Amino acid sequence: MRGWLDDAPSYVPPVKVGAVMRALAVGRVVESKNDDFPVGAHVHGTLGVRDYLVTDGKDLRVIDTSQVSGPEHLAALGLTGLTAYFGLMELGKPTEGETVLVSGAAGAVGSVVGQLAKIAGARVIGIAGSDEKCEWLTGELGFDEAINYKTADSLTKAIASAAPNGVDVFFDNVGGRVLDAALANTARNARLVICGAISDYNSTDRAGIRNYPRIITHSLTIHGFTIGDFGDRLPEGMKALGGYLAEGKLVSRIDARDAEVKDFPEVFGALFEGTNTGKLIMALPGRE
Amino acid sequence: MRGWLDDAPSYVPPVKVGAVMRALAVGRVVESKNDDFPVGAHVHGTLGVRDYLVTDGKDLRVIDTSQVSGPEHLAALGLTGLTAYFGLMELGKPTEGETVLVSGAAGAVGSVVGQLAKIAGARVIGIAGSDEKCEWLTGELGFDEAINYKTADSLTKAIASAAPNGVDVFFDNVGGRVLDAALANTARNARLVICGAISDYNSTDRAGIRNYPRIITHSLTIHGFTIGDFGDRLPEGMKALGGYLAEGKLVSRIDARDAEVKDFPEVFGALFEGTNTGKLIMALPGRE
Repeated sequence: MRGWLDDAPSYVPPVKVGAVMRALAVGRVVESKNDDFPVGAHVHGTLGVRDYLVTDGKDLRVIDTSQVSGPEHLAALGLTGLTAYFGLMELGKPTEGETVLVSGAAGAVGSVVGQLAKIAGARVIGIAGSDEKCEWLTGELGFDEAINYKTADSLTKAIASAAPNGVDVFFDNVGGRVLDAALANTARNARLVICGAISDYNSTDRAGIRNYPRIITHSLTIHGFTIGDFGDRLPEGMKALGGYLAEGKLVSRIDARDAEVKDFPEVFGALFEGTNTGKLIMALPGRE
Repeated sequence: MRGWLDDAPSYVPPVKVGAVMRALAVGRVVESKNDDFPVGAHVHGTLGVRDYLVTDGKDLRVIDTSQVSGPEHLAALGLTGLTAYFGLMELGKPTEGETVLVSGAAGAVGSVVGQLAKIAGARVIGIAGSDEKCEWLTGELGFDEAINYKTADSLTKAIASAAPNGVDVFFDNVGGRVLDAALANTARNARLVICGAISDYNSTDRAGIRNYPRIITHSLTIHGFTIGDFGDRLPEGMKALGGYLAEGKLVSRIDARDAEVKDFPEVFGALFEGTNTGKLIMALPGRE
């Protein structure tokens, strides 16, 4: 969303000054002249930050909130959960007994990736930026090991120690030196799924990936992707993730903040102050 | 072969001092007690640098030299040709009308890659290190364009100019800044086949690959490999390459030097002096 506020070319046009802020949201139908959207139904789509809107329903989807709540449709079943699902299952393809390494593991994408890798029968190692996050990973989320990259003397050695037989799948949200350290620990035929490079997005002087000859010597495959690559398969991912949530196999952490439309900038700011825990969602009280 | 002469771990054990130099070769059966290897048959395998040997035939293959000569079994149908074939066709998968970029294009691997890409109906751009090599690529080999990386002001801009719609497949034998410049010009869903990193093998201070975030934004796939990954499919590649040679669709340049076994070090040295043109092969006169 931050990128949409810059007046620069991106994967979608910028939001104009004075326009409704673009946002994925879950809403409820209060009046209807369209049988596909009965009154009372919950709908999911790019509704924007506002109290009400009139729409022909184009690009909106009615969702079932009987088993999976509206907010979960924006978190575990939203873009972050779906990114984790398709990136890991379709590109990383972890198998029973393999070792999966995840960076940004306590984030909205990484935390789902690690849990899906456990469901697939893999041994899972997470990289995160605080001891508290690492404890959450190995505790509530069931990761096998977690590495605090901020306190590790050598990230490369810490990964080697946690993955003595090498890393079979690396799901990367961070890039930069984390990616380089992971590359140095890849097993033969490892798959690297490059989902984000948060460490380098604002960098003007990138260090560069130096361990790339390992791509040849270890017959690695590297996949980059955005969720748009799986645009026609999202319902399939939602069904799988919804099932795991309902069975209690997937833990999702949502930080829902009650607020009015006018408070959006303040709520949004929590992302940049780092005060949110889990997927940050703004809730309009009384609209459930 | 150079790597086998270092007393250091590699993908095969080093050749010991005083031992027969390990070498892939084509030989002829002069005596036989094995019906699988009749007298007069040509055989291919790791025969070593020597005049004669006694062998049980293990790991040797009888080859048909009626359409493809013995030396061609070491060049276009040897490890370099097979590396080009499987790397491009199985990993790069160029399709009709796509743009294929090849680095080290005048080399034993690159020259075959470019010609196979033309056979697949792609537009082919080669990167090489001299105007003479570039002329060979666009002349005899039928490449659409060639870039002399030594004289181009900006390799990134030269590629952009030669590939205005972006590069769909990049077959890389060089690594380093050539790989980075190619990355900057990738089309969406491009495939990068990383076959060699000759520019960085002896480097103690690599510049590093800085354009890697494009892997995400353009949904790229990068494949590293060695020919061993296709070990059980080599006959299939030989058959295809042999067919192209026989039809005249594939031009192979062989630099065969007549020499005695004792002259091996001198012949081998041509590789490091750069005095060879095409695939360097040592021929023992009178043994054809």
